[in-house]
Amino acid sequence: MAAFYAGQKSFRLEEVVPVAPGPGEVQIDVAYCGVCGTDMHVFHGDMDARVTTHRIIGHEMSGVIAAVGAGVEHIRTGQRVVVRPLDHCGDCPACRAGHSHICHNLKFLGLDSNGAFQQKWTVPAHTVHVLPQNLDLKLAAMVEPLAVACHDVRRGRIAAGEIALVIGGGPIGMLIALVAAHAGANAIVAEINENRLAIARKLELETINPKDGAIGPAIMARTDGRGADVVFEVSGSQAGVEAMTAAAAARGRIVMVAINNKRPPVDLFQFFWRELEMLGARVYEPEDYNRAIELLESGAVDVAPLITDIRGLDEIEQAFTGLEGNSNAMKTLIQVGAGT
Amino acid sequence: MAAFYAGQKSFRLEEVVPVAPGPGEVQIDVAYCGVCGTDMHVFHGDMDARVTTHRIIGHEMSGVIAAVGAGVEHIRTGQRVVVRPLDHCGDCPACRAGHSHICHNLKFLGLDSNGAFQQKWTVPAHTVHVLPQNLDLKLAAMVEPLAVACHDVRRGRIAAGEIALVIGGGPIGMLIALVAAHAGANAIVAEINENRLAIARKLELETINPKDGAIGPAIMARTDGRGADVVFEVSGSQAGVEAMTAAAAARGRIVMVAINNKRPPVDLFQFFWRELEMLGARVYEPEDYNRAIELLESGAVDVAPLITDIRGLDEIEQAFTGLEGNSNAMKTLIQVGAGT
Ligand SMILES: [Zn+2]
Ligand SMILES: [Zn+2]
Ligand SMILES: [Zn+2]
Ligand SMILES: [Zn+2]
Repeated sequence: MAAFYAGQKSFRLEEVVPVAPGPGEVQIDVAYCGVCGTDMHVFHGDMDARVTTHRIIGHEMSGVIAAVGAGVEHIRTGQRVVVRPLDHCGDCPACRAGHSHICHNLKFLGLDSNGAFQQKWTVPAHTVHVLPQNLDLKLAAMVEPLAVACHDVRRGRIAAGEIALVIGGGPIGMLIALVAAHAGANAIVAEINENRLAIARKLELETINPKDGAIGPAIMARTDGRGADVVFEVSGSQAGVEAMTAAAAARGRIVMVAINNKRPPVDLFQFFWRELEMLGARVYEPEDYNRAIELLESGAVDVAPLITDIRGLDEIEQAFTGLEGNSNAMKTLIQVGAGT
Repeated sequence: MAAFYAGQKSFRLEEVVPVAPGPGEVQIDVAYCGVCGTDMHVFHGDMDARVTTHRIIGHEMSGVIAAVGAGVEHIRTGQRVVVRPLDHCGDCPACRAGHSHICHNLKFLGLDSNGAFQQKWTVPAHTVHVLPQNLDLKLAAMVEPLAVACHDVRRGRIAAGEIALVIGGGPIGMLIALVAAHAGANAIVAEINENRLAIARKLELETINPKDGAIGPAIMARTDGRGADVVFEVSGSQAGVEAMTAAAAARGRIVMVAINNKRPPVDLFQFFWRELEMLGARVYEPEDYNRAIELLESGAVDVAPLITDIRGLDEIEQAFTGLEGNSNAMKTLIQVGAGT
């Protein structure tokens, strides 16, 4: 059974013949697959040109190896796994420079080819990370977004004792704050939704509501005029772009996590004046996946409170519809197969 | 004799009683002092609120120690020197973090207090760098802008074999390109003024004229689609801000040298997509001065072709007027005292 995105705001469930794993491939019994912000964009019809209107999407998954193709070593049937859904070309300037996760010709599984909202998913073996066998598959479906957070925190070179401001308290912002806090930073989540702020506080994160006053001055007041050592701009809002320069310390780092499709005005003067640094961050590298798995296995980062809903594959359209404009929701998982 | 900036587009020459050096101070016989872009802003009346209309400006100087105040060791009368014109507070978050050159309360000598367009200049001894005694004082007047370039190149972490694009071929852009080339980079100067391009070519720098086509695609074509490893945005123009993201390689660094008083639209999407990095760069640290002096002493960087005019202190107003809108000129030095 597979859920095909079938054009604006609809999914169609279809029986599909599972793709047998070819050489260098593995077939996975998908357990859970989370709904990502990108999937919501697809659902809204914003990415039809790229994904078409007959595509199995989904990439934040966990599952169990069902079959192994020829030439695949080190992966065995029955192992719990997650997929790092990136397929690079190996030959562009980014790949040659060792940055294959931002390959000029990067293909994203679940967008550019079929994804994980299907019961048997066949993928290149090089995309697979094997999980510790005791890791809950619901938590494991959080590896992909947690790896994003690990990558963002690594780009920001967070050190213990630093002040990390996270602008935007959605799932990625929350995970960044958790990873930064685990690295010893004083993590502060800026978010306007009170429900999300309550979740952040439950996760023992500091919070700030921009409705109570501009973020920049508030952070300066809290830090004796020093500002945040690292600012993660996750909101993708003009207010966020303004706050990121206003709240950063001298020589502060700004990690640009949000996808800005417009070209917002940026206070470049502050970059000069306080020697700010901005680092773009996109997806993850293998070590970010390893780190995310480690953090879940050890229980160092508790992502369970972020899973706010679990639905069956047959409810996928209602699950997506329910997420529209619902900023109280954090992460919805779709139970695709048996799961545990 | 001192030249006072005396309100919009005027200087007034006045006899002044030299300030005797107090404890921890030295008095310098100023030889030469270059005209900086900032000095031009003062001349245009743009900075009256900060500098007042009765201020001796000038900071790109060279000279000889005339007298030494109490408690000053390691500096002797007769030594050739330059001044690093920064006075920091020592107690703000930036100073405490070791970044005193971007002190929150930074005072700039020659703007916030009197500068070097006067024959005897008294400054704190901690601002002085002693020169090799054989260094020509005309070349030494280029230490300050060359130190800016050394700082910018250091912020950009230039490595041998990298492609460095410098957007804007004024004196600072040209010096950045020279320092980057000396570090082993392939330095390309983008500039629309043909006279400046001719100077760049005389300095054995590669050039590109944006009038012949947009910078981004031109750099991509020259580099087989790779882009520039480091982009220095020195132009302060919207075209420069557009080109900096368009021309940078995956994981490329952008050094923001220009002072943007407006908030230009910035293609933040590219920061995310190609994991670009932007680093603000302001003035210099002591090691940048040391490096600049070293580069001049060894002759590794030839700045002589950039000195396009030398005028007497009595011609200072004409010198400034002559620089207005004259993009053929590079650096004008004012001969303040005896000089050599
Ligand atoms: Zn995702
Ligand atoms: Zn590639
Ligand atoms: Zn200057
Ligand atoms: Zn200070």
